Amino acid sequence: MPNMLKIFETVLYSDNLDAAKTFYSRVMGLRLLSQNDLMLVFSIDESYLLIFNPDKSEVAGRLVPSHAARGQGHIAFTITEDEKKTWRARLADAGIEIESEVRWDDGARGTSIYFRDPAGNSIELAPPNLWTYLKNP
Amino acid sequence: MPNMLKIFETVLYSDNLDAAKTFYSRVMGLRLLSQNDLMLVFSIDESYLLIFNPDKSEVAGRLVPSHAARGQGHIAFTITEDEKKTWRARLADAGIEIESEVRWDDGARGTSIYFRDPAGNSIELAPPNLWTYLKNP
Repeated sequence: MPNMLKIFETVLYSDNLDAAKTFYSRVMGLRLLSQNDLMLVFSIDESYLLIFNPDKSEVAGRLVPSHAARGQGHIAFTITEDEKKTWRARLADAGIEIESEVRWDDGARGTSIYFRDPAGNSIELAPPNLWTYLKNP
Repeated sequence: MPNMLKIFETVLYSDNLDAAKTFYSRVMGLRLLSQNDLMLVFSIDESYLLIFNPDKSEVAGRLVPSHAARGQGHIAFTITEDEKKTWRARLADAGIEIESEVRWDDGARGTSIYFRDPAGNSIELAPPNLWTYLKNP
């Protein structure tokens, strides 16, 4: 059995990379490493978030295999309870509407904040211990 | 500025969760924490891979916002150079065809191995230093 894998690249799609660039850089505060008409590359801790233009990534004959998903994808980032207030203010300042907040197990597992990126992908700011009960049942 | 985010949940979609369960558990070796007709939850290091049935996740009125992407998504995991041989054998044993291998910068940045999950999502086993040149230009 090989060593356990680590997630290296997480991918979302957007048909407007300029809007995605502004959102993920300025609102989410991620570090943009590279941009072209195919994709944006953001650095996060030891991993990467790649935002692809699906019309460019769904092309046979590229160096790498074709891929593209359309619709409203989903990603979750972790924030601590202490950071929730800052994030609510940051989203309000940016004019980003909070779509919903979910208190898991009446708050015992924390609260998630949901909103959308410009492409409609569902973004979640989740409590770090959301799934811990499954790991240590 | 809030603290830097960490990616907590990476999401792919599959209309056959049984096939996804077998693939990600047995071939990829991920730890399955939970399964139902909506999703599979896999634990990876300090993050999670969620595989959703898009017909179940794209529903208004769920506790959490609707999301669903259709097509062939993409995810990359890191493996070290030493693990490549083991992974090639593992994929061969499982009858998984390697779609392509890409030597980045003639191998200076390592080699990526690409194949598909049962839903057609593009899976990459990438060298850990693939993007390092962008972080430390």
